[in-house]
Amino acid sequence: MIERRGLMLVLSSPSGAGKTSLSRRLLDVEPDIALSVSATTRPRRPGEVEGKHYYFLAPQDFSTNINKGYFLEYAKVFGYYYGTPAEPVNDRLKQGRDVLFDIDWQGTQQLKDAARDDLVSVFILPPSTAELERRLLSRAQDSKDVVAMRMSKASDEMSHYPEYDYIIVNHDLDTSVDAIRHILNAERLKRERQLGLPNFVKSLSQ
Amino acid sequence: MIERRGLMLVLSSPSGAGKTSLSRRLLDVEPDIALSVSATTRPRRPGEVEGKHYYFLAPQDFSTNINKGYFLEYAKVFGYYYGTPAEPVNDRLKQGRDVLFDIDWQGTQQLKDAARDDLVSVFILPPSTAELERRLLSRAQDSKDVVAMRMSKASDEMSHYPEYDYIIVNHDLDTSVDAIRHILNAERLKRERQLGLPNFVKSLSQ
Repeated sequence: MIERRGLMLVLSSPSGAGKTSLSRRLLDVEPDIALSVSATTRPRRPGEVEGKHYYFLAPQDFSTNINKGYFLEYAKVFGYYYGTPAEPVNDRLKQGRDVLFDIDWQGTQQLKDAARDDLVSVFILPPSTAELERRLLSRAQDSKDVVAMRMSKASDEMSHYPEYDYIIVNHDLDTSVDAIRHILNAERLKRERQLGLPNFVKSLSQ
Repeated sequence: MIERRGLMLVLSSPSGAGKTSLSRRLLDVEPDIALSVSATTRPRRPGEVEGKHYYFLAPQDFSTNINKGYFLEYAKVFGYYYGTPAEPVNDRLKQGRDVLFDIDWQGTQQLKDAARDDLVSVFILPPSTAELERRLLSRAQDSKDVVAMRMSKASDEMSHYPEYDYIIVNHDLDTSVDAIRHILNAERLKRERQLGLPNFVKSLSQ
């Protein structure tokens, strides 16, 4: 029996706020949530696995899927398309299981329009801009210019935090993972998500 | 510095669903929440402490306080008045601390009207009517007639579960205490309650 309808948990944050580590930890400890796999037209990079990291599509196939309404949200970033295929998400939700989305504020806006009641959005903030810069600088591969560009992009992304349901300031990975799990568990207990209440209860409210 | 505005957590349930045990456990493990102490005109019983179990008021004093608007909610039950004094609750909320309310659906309705944004309401359900009856019967002091009356009162109370934000089916005390703590923690992370976000964040959203 389906106990409840699944929910869509969105985690957004600027690059460097720790979102990727948080997502991985959450997926490790919460068996009932799975990451939504995006489709993209950008070329596959070494080590990336079709259907795990992305669904890799030719540009004309991506366009066809847009026209058929197969995406919950999509965007063009630096010349490549990225989108969330609707069907695997809807299948999971119907089974009463949850889906995790690692998307930016634009994707979140589109998802909200597509699935208002199922969406729970969480914005992850760094404790300070100094800490954010430190984390971005510690990624050895990035030059100072790239870091400056990322800081500017981060400010832009962070300015959208008021559009989210929950805010977590990521001081510490363990505390933040617990916070996300508590949000997930609380949202599962929301009245409107509980389809599996005892039968005697349903007969009361008539 | 105040990190956030406090919230009002309401736990309601029919008698026998385990609410009293849950409240006690929650107060033991959550130092930042305190039980709201009601005022009443009913006579003090042996062992009851003024200011801990109730504020005991003479009927004319209770009426004066109603007229002065000193109560967040009040009701007359079996000939005695019961009410929630507003001042201690508001003082705690302003300090960024939370208040627990052990009140019925009528009190919850009045609180909602008085403090919509600060209120988080949780309804505790027994796993089944059979289990509820078993729990009521196991209270040795109650006769069969009293149990039947309580069962009828319980059905009436339970029919109001759709007015609550969250529903917990109390199969197991530990799991239910965790569920309440998760709700409390999640609600504390709601964007609109977070007054203590890092300063750089506030400057972003202008």
